[in-house]
Amino acid sequence: MDYFMEPTGVAIIGASQDFKTINGKILKYLLKHKYQGQIYPVNPKYREIEGLPCYPSVDAIPERVDLALIAVAAARVPGILRDCGAKKIKRAVIFSSGFSETGSEGKKIQEEIIKIAQEFEMRLIGPNCLGVLNVSTGLIASFSASMELDSIKEGPVALVSQSGAVGFLLFNLLQDAGVGVNYVITTGNEADVTVSEGLAYLVENPSTKVILTYLEGLRDGETFKRTIEKAAEAGKPIIALKVGNSASGQKAAATHTAALTGSGAAYKSYFDKMGIIQAKDSDDIIDLAQAFVPGKLPKGARLGIVTMSGGVGILLADRLEEVGLQVPQLSEALQEEVRKVIPAFGCAQNPVDVTAQSLNEGEEFKKCLKILLESDELDMLIVAITMATGKLAEKIGRDVAEAALETDKPLVVCWSVGQVAKPGFDVLKDAGIPLYHSPARAAKVMGVLYNYARFKDGWKTTVAEKINIPRQTKVQNALKESNKALSEHATKELLELYGLPVTKEYVAKSAEEAVAIAENMGYPVVMKIDSPDILHKTEAGGVAVNINSAQSVEATFNEVMKRALNYNPQAKINGILMQEQVPAGVEAIIGLQRDPVLGTQIMFGLGGIFVEVFKDVVLKPAPLSREDALEVLNQIKGGALLNGVRGGQPADKEALVEILLGVSQLAVEAGEDLLSLDINPVTVLAQGRGAKILDGVLVSSGLDNN
Amino acid sequence: MDYFMEPTGVAIIGASQDFKTINGKILKYLLKHKYQGQIYPVNPKYREIEGLPCYPSVDAIPERVDLALIAVAAARVPGILRDCGAKKIKRAVIFSSGFSETGSEGKKIQEEIIKIAQEFEMRLIGPNCLGVLNVSTGLIASFSASMELDSIKEGPVALVSQSGAVGFLLFNLLQDAGVGVNYVITTGNEADVTVSEGLAYLVENPSTKVILTYLEGLRDGETFKRTIEKAAEAGKPIIALKVGNSASGQKAAATHTAALTGSGAAYKSYFDKMGIIQAKDSDDIIDLAQAFVPGKLPKGARLGIVTMSGGVGILLADRLEEVGLQVPQLSEALQEEVRKVIPAFGCAQNPVDVTAQSLNEGEEFKKCLKILLESDELDMLIVAITMATGKLAEKIGRDVAEAALETDKPLVVCWSVGQVAKPGFDVLKDAGIPLYHSPARAAKVMGVLYNYARFKDGWKTTVAEKINIPRQTKVQNALKESNKALSEHATKELLELYGLPVTKEYVAKSAEEAVAIAENMGYPVVMKIDSPDILHKTEAGGVAVNINSAQSVEATFNEVMKRALNYNPQAKINGILMQEQVPAGVEAIIGLQRDPVLGTQIMFGLGGIFVEVFKDVVLKPAPLSREDALEVLNQIKGGALLNGVRGGQPADKEALVEILLGVSQLAVEAGEDLLSLDINPVTVLAQGRGAKILDGVLVSSGLDNN
Repeated sequence: MDYFMEPTGVAIIGASQDFKTINGKILKYLLKHKYQGQIYPVNPKYREIEGLPCYPSVDAIPERVDLALIAVAAARVPGILRDCGAKKIKRAVIFSSGFSETGSEGKKIQEEIIKIAQEFEMRLIGPNCLGVLNVSTGLIASFSASMELDSIKEGPVALVSQSGAVGFLLFNLLQDAGVGVNYVITTGNEADVTVSEGLAYLVENPSTKVILTYLEGLRDGETFKRTIEKAAEAGKPIIALKVGNSASGQKAAATHTAALTGSGAAYKSYFDKMGIIQAKDSDDIIDLAQAFVPGKLPKGARLGIVTMSGGVGILLADRLEEVGLQVPQLSEALQEEVRKVIPAFGCAQNPVDVTAQSLNEGEEFKKCLKILLESDELDMLIVAITMATGKLAEKIGRDVAEAALETDKPLVVCWSVGQVAKPGFDVLKDAGIPLYHSPARAAKVMGVLYNYARFKDGWKTTVAEKINIPRQTKVQNALKESNKALSEHATKELLELYGLPVTKEYVAKSAEEAVAIAENMGYPVVMKIDSPDILHKTEAGGVAVNINSAQSVEATFNEVMKRALNYNPQAKINGILMQEQVPAGVEAIIGLQRDPVLGTQIMFGLGGIFVEVFKDVVLKPAPLSREDALEVLNQIKGGALLNGVRGGQPADKEALVEILLGVSQLAVEAGEDLLSLDINPVTVLAQGRGAKILDGVLVSSGLDNN
Repeated sequence: MDYFMEPTGVAIIGASQDFKTINGKILKYLLKHKYQGQIYPVNPKYREIEGLPCYPSVDAIPERVDLALIAVAAARVPGILRDCGAKKIKRAVIFSSGFSETGSEGKKIQEEIIKIAQEFEMRLIGPNCLGVLNVSTGLIASFSASMELDSIKEGPVALVSQSGAVGFLLFNLLQDAGVGVNYVITTGNEADVTVSEGLAYLVENPSTKVILTYLEGLRDGETFKRTIEKAAEAGKPIIALKVGNSASGQKAAATHTAALTGSGAAYKSYFDKMGIIQAKDSDDIIDLAQAFVPGKLPKGARLGIVTMSGGVGILLADRLEEVGLQVPQLSEALQEEVRKVIPAFGCAQNPVDVTAQSLNEGEEFKKCLKILLESDELDMLIVAITMATGKLAEKIGRDVAEAALETDKPLVVCWSVGQVAKPGFDVLKDAGIPLYHSPARAAKVMGVLYNYARFKDGWKTTVAEKINIPRQTKVQNALKESNKALSEHATKELLELYGLPVTKEYVAKSAEEAVAIAENMGYPVVMKIDSPDILHKTEAGGVAVNINSAQSVEATFNEVMKRALNYNPQAKINGILMQEQVPAGVEAIIGLQRDPVLGTQIMFGLGGIFVEVFKDVVLKPAPLSREDALEVLNQIKGGALLNGVRGGQPADKEALVEILLGVSQLAVEAGEDLLSLDINPVTVLAQGRGAKILDGVLVSSGLDNN
């Protein structure tokens, strides 16, 4: 990416002196924002443009060129790329539309340019993108009207977007909010460079402190995941605006786990685990970017409010409670301190009402902020300002900015009035103090800062157990051999390799064998048809429970066999599975679902109506740590059921944790060969008595193509 | 309220020629915004101020004065009020602080001014408020800095707020968003005039089309409810920003129903029922106000998106799905029409991508909007604009405004860029086109418009059944006699008056009587201690089920009696309740909870873990219509359980509806005497087999003082 972001010279193919055209704008903005490298306009029509020598073709440029900017019609792009390749230009940004986004014709041209790039070892950004910015060097390689700004505020926020329009509107909103930006990368059709590579560059980049990204879908999951892991490791916040339903989720929606979790769930669970902050809106992502710029995170959840309106204080407190923060009562001693610097009719309790009057003059307001920021009773502060105009607004802004710059606690301003208070807004923006024009927005970012701080403190890479190679080989072979779902028995045999507590069970080929097994196992027993061709055993009449005698076993054997053949005369039948009958307990479901981009996710829910009616399930990316597994049990809404309610005994959570960890290890070892697993149900017995997997089905990725 | 809002002349007590003081500002703003009535400054220090004669006292004013504006120190207010009363001034706005909000000293002065007002038949607004505005007459009776605006845009939005600061910051935000306002009323401490009276004035006022209100708590529930009913009847939208936890909810939190629903729930359910639109933030209420100003509501849920960025289109579609709207595919015929007016590389499918180019010149963009607005495939339109500056932004604004003004379908603009596009924003604001700077906000208001349209179409007053006077008398007497909770048996006797299916049961005074009852009723039976002093029967060991023989009845009788007396030796014991044992079914809970302001709410939930673990309950204000009752059953998350899941039979919903209606009628007839009712559980049998109330407790309002 360095050649893209730090080129020593750029060629503008088809450069124009008409600054209203796209090619003209690219040149215009490079000049306007004082690009520090060489600019080589290329256009046979001109000798020079704006005092720069203009070349008839790229090979006529005498110096080395790192980057070509191409915004000509799609059909001309392949020829130009070859010229660039011949000139040994190693990077090109292709703005042009008319490629794969327009249909099969464009797709062909896109494939052609990919081949050319490979041939010349050239990397491409785009096509169908809005270019890249490196603000510090004035590399404003874009024709977005956002570049009309007189000057660009430089700062620690970088932006990488799959959509050019969204990328640059976010850039514009950031600038409008006074947030400085260093890099913008828009990747468009991603014929070559992906959003993940852009992210990787920014995560490594030392001048980037906060990364924003707009994502529609990812193709290179491995790069993405490696990058995200690095960001988590470095504690560099990534704020994502992810749109569209997860295509992978839709693809695999045939399986139970995917159907229960719905589209987008894989992204959500992955983002949650990796501390990626999820924005829902353009407003939102800008709000969040502002909050992270000062680089201050709260040490706890205790928030102070300074306000001049009781009403705004209550509104803030309502919203803060929703995001899980506390607005604690202040100690008598602290209130005493506060009372000295606020008017008599103010309120020294949290929310602290300093009254509108105290703002007018003097040092009291600033002193009050300082007292609260220095107190060890509060971890962060919202200053809620109401009506103020002109000079007064400016003074308030200055007081707040000074207090904010002296503290390492997060301080944000909630100032819900219009442009009348602009002088105050400007002071805050210049000082880099996060400024929100409504209470809910200020409250929300504080909640996010707090959660991110907890994530950062608790972050550690989840390392899977060592891979057991012989076991892995067995599992992978079993999955590869089966071009579809494994039978219950075959599934359980694999689960058993991971020490999972499957039911005791044996396949009986004949009625006599069945009786012998039952006599040996003890009654009651469960009998199930065992056939790779009959997945829906109950539907086929292939399940019988509570079988209590040898006589009954014999009769059931014959009956179940008959029903199975009736159901599917072609079915290959292995026999009847003779299974121990497990006493009643809490029923749970544990599943696995492989997302082709983000990898395998583990699902947990309580069985029956809890997943079917209440959709009460949790997803978490594999591998799981022991803490992850425990968290999963507590995250479901019905988690209390495992603790025993209404006189019930607590269930054996430890046994569930062990199953989750085993399933996690299976996911790691099975890798891409595994599409999904449903363990449904597992019966969880009372604490200390374990759990039993009653049924399960593993599906190999072979099914993927169905 | 007319004298407040349309006075022919106002006196400013303590008027000042120093426009930096509060009293000076009140005069300044009346002059600045050209108040059309007479202004009478009152201050012995001056002969005239700004060319107006200044009077030494109110009685020196020669003409009639409708309204006094008072912003002097609290201690001086009573004297001034008496002077005003003597001068026959019938209305006063008291801005001053230092009353009940500051403690017992201020409370006394507030009580004094209430007495004075009663004595002189004078009405008061405030104290501790920021005054009132009537924009059309220039009655700018406030000292809020919001009045510094050069001119105030007049329009159909009115605002009534319990907080002065919040009221005027919302006013300022409305003006900033280009939304015209006609009235603002801030009620402060509400010594006399309440927010409900303000609402009532605005609901009746023909020039007010949209009402915003900021509420902390209500005291005159009857006025409020009458007003809200009128607004619903008239289809006049009220948008409320309700803050703080419901005090009433906290007060009654001792009862089961209140504890389950939590604070604020009564407001939410009442607002839902009455179509009051609930804002969560200052941003939100301004967004919503804008959306309602054009007075256009969608006829259906089908929304068209016109965009110039695929990314913004997807983001909008994501958020629209969340608010329950559809972004339908367009018919081939309509796409054909659209294709004629968009560039070849645009997209005629919804979201329609007109591309940035098509905006530049010509009529195509406007034509495209027109085609979509005229189509019968869409009910509303979001126009999502990305980057555009200067003249282009202005042209886009004009095109959209023209298209919007020609249609009766809602059209809003989502324009997520900064101030570079201001010329476009200004055109839209001037034309009154709702403008949002982010996709989620545009999507949200469309969802609210759609829901309000459905509310308006479906609105009808719920009329309770005719009151059965003898029954009402019985119920009220029973509640009055009991200064606390009624016993199970007494509760059921009252429920039976409403035809509710309580268990067959008789009180046995002796073991022999118990046996006789059981023999007559048939086995098995349930036996419960019957004592007004033992509410927690199970805890007292006072419940036995599955009693199957005469012998067992006898033994149980003695055992239960012994345990009860052990539990509470002082308990007055009526005997043992002999009850039919009801077969298993779906367990539900039905409750009643009286909110002192909003009246009685009915609660419904499924029993056991569903209310305890999942908090799956619904509240609805009484009285219920039959449709309400059915809706309640479907609104709980576990509603599907009543339809029969996993092979279960559907439950008798009709029987539940009848119980809900009976409980609703009980609420109406019992009125204020009833604090709460818990029917817990009611067993719902299979369809056609009815339901049985197993246990219940009515609590009279006597408990209120506990």
